[in-house]
Amino acid sequence: MSETVSIDLGERSYDILIGQGLLDAQAPWRDLPRAACAVIVTNDTVAPLYAQRLQQALAPHYARRLVIELPDGEAHKDWNSLNLIFDRLLAEGCDRKTVLFALGGGVVGDMTGFAAACYMRGVPFVQVPTTLLAQVDSSVGGKTAINHPRGKNMIGAFYQPQRVVCDLDTLDSLPPRELSAGLAEVIKYGPIADPAFLDWIEQNIGALMARDKAALAHAVKRSCEIKAAVVGQDERESGLRAILNFGHTFGHAIEAGLGYGEWLHGEAVGCGMVMAADLSVRLGLMPAEFLERLRQLIARAGLPTVGPRLGAERYLELMRVDKKAEGGEMRFVVIESLGNATMRPAPDAVVRDVLDACTR
Amino acid sequence: MSETVSIDLGERSYDILIGQGLLDAQAPWRDLPRAACAVIVTNDTVAPLYAQRLQQALAPHYARRLVIELPDGEAHKDWNSLNLIFDRLLAEGCDRKTVLFALGGGVVGDMTGFAAACYMRGVPFVQVPTTLLAQVDSSVGGKTAINHPRGKNMIGAFYQPQRVVCDLDTLDSLPPRELSAGLAEVIKYGPIADPAFLDWIEQNIGALMARDKAALAHAVKRSCEIKAAVVGQDERESGLRAILNFGHTFGHAIEAGLGYGEWLHGEAVGCGMVMAADLSVRLGLMPAEFLERLRQLIARAGLPTVGPRLGAERYLELMRVDKKAEGGEMRFVVIESLGNATMRPAPDAVVRDVLDACTR
Repeated sequence: MSETVSIDLGERSYDILIGQGLLDAQAPWRDLPRAACAVIVTNDTVAPLYAQRLQQALAPHYARRLVIELPDGEAHKDWNSLNLIFDRLLAEGCDRKTVLFALGGGVVGDMTGFAAACYMRGVPFVQVPTTLLAQVDSSVGGKTAINHPRGKNMIGAFYQPQRVVCDLDTLDSLPPRELSAGLAEVIKYGPIADPAFLDWIEQNIGALMARDKAALAHAVKRSCEIKAAVVGQDERESGLRAILNFGHTFGHAIEAGLGYGEWLHGEAVGCGMVMAADLSVRLGLMPAEFLERLRQLIARAGLPTVGPRLGAERYLELMRVDKKAEGGEMRFVVIESLGNATMRPAPDAVVRDVLDACTR
Repeated sequence: MSETVSIDLGERSYDILIGQGLLDAQAPWRDLPRAACAVIVTNDTVAPLYAQRLQQALAPHYARRLVIELPDGEAHKDWNSLNLIFDRLLAEGCDRKTVLFALGGGVVGDMTGFAAACYMRGVPFVQVPTTLLAQVDSSVGGKTAINHPRGKNMIGAFYQPQRVVCDLDTLDSLPPRELSAGLAEVIKYGPIADPAFLDWIEQNIGALMARDKAALAHAVKRSCEIKAAVVGQDERESGLRAILNFGHTFGHAIEAGLGYGEWLHGEAVGCGMVMAADLSVRLGLMPAEFLERLRQLIARAGLPTVGPRLGAERYLELMRVDKKAEGGEMRFVVIESLGNATMRPAPDAVVRDVLDACTR
């Protein structure tokens, strides 16, 4: 039993399969690009859990199946890890038809996707996300990247996968912190695109925290539908797509300011959404009730709602290097009305007020 | 006075401007993407010659103009040099509208293009080739890459420039070896696509070696026309485009076997074309006269026609990692009839005979 969300990008279109038991099923692995070799890229946490099962699922289709294990964590989302992939692919004589499979969370997906974009100027790849965050957000839409000491995701490519396979059963092995981190990106889709979905999340946050499969299935599917619709209209983020970064400008500053890996990306985004909601209120776009409503939901999802006290100037400095900044002017995703987001510049003084109110 | 060759790739189409005095003219630098900052990426050989003039030409259009100087040479076409670009762009706060200008030869063009493809997931760039090789080949068509210790151009992207500006006057400063290296790629277009152009090159090789501007203008224009036609049909090298690699499989093995930078790329391609012509003859596709004709022209262009004695097994090993290899089978660009090239596998024994005959 699985459901399919399609993402329409012309010749780069692909399907997102969502369901239970997909890792051991036949159908998700059929009709992918043919090659002599499939390479599963994963990390040392996920590999013992799922790498062998994926190898078996791929056995009917690929004569050789290699596994590359990267060190786990955002702190390793860098050139050194990327080069581990290139070194191995070249050492094993992998040609430019080789298909890469990203088995893991957002870090594995972003790095594998970027490696696929660059290896011999581009080989096909498949996303097999095993975290909620990757299933609802990072594995969909073709954003790939590594971090640079001066900023997150600064080096990367827009490069679409051939398919995304979301096996909900893999969420059983997820640590509670990572489940919460994924819920941050689920919650995001409510205020930016779908008030009814925000209502649904509020009503079902208990079931989601308890990993109820039916609730998770709906959350993943609706999140992917919204993301697919946005990315289908603006693949390369020339406009609309930026709304998916609600909470991310503040969140990236938290991640970079504390050092990557200290807070999970989803935790930083959760807290960042509180800040972005506060900014929306201070700019006169939304009523104060919206901020309280979002703060409560984020807290119920087990996420931090108060940011680390890095100092407003340090936050501003970190945010100025954000990719959404242009000509030195910071721009923020804010909520205009429930279900509608937009990009706005904001005076430094107002941003300082937000930071004073939302950090401790 | 300049001529324009257009390359038709739908929304990624662009013009190649060819002429004298373009570096100091106004027109070539108009109507490029607008940005707060233009970044000229060049090397320590080219910078003292032309960087300041290009900065002046860009002054009316970009408020900030930065120059990044990389170390010169194929040996530096690696991640370390690429990262020098990223470090500087981030240190200077360059946003994702920043336009990069590749001022130099093929190495600068390939690295700048790849940096543009990856920086913040893609910024626009302009090719300003100052070598004959870059003007007739590497700056056109969107192939960008860096080398890996295990193989040339293994990490890269297909990423098209906004424009290519070929100022023929910059060829005056080219060392004789580099002029010859560029002629190798000019000669290439004859056997693979245009027998009449091969005749013309034979008749004008003296004028080309003497840097006659009218002869160079025709050579650059006709080369770009042929390359534009091929790339327009097969941007991502799924088939036809591979014919542009005539001589390159052998050539890459020479470059890698000796260590990048020992022979210039064009020198290796010149010698590689002799080997590929020899292979075409041994496979019964072409008469022996073709090999002799090509060998003489390549010699008249000041290029080596005999390869280094690396040993046939080492050549084979180096060629197996070539991007054109698939499923471990090497494939070579061979000439079927004058003006027509194709990809063919070749028995190792025949390739060994070629290597025995063409190395010393």
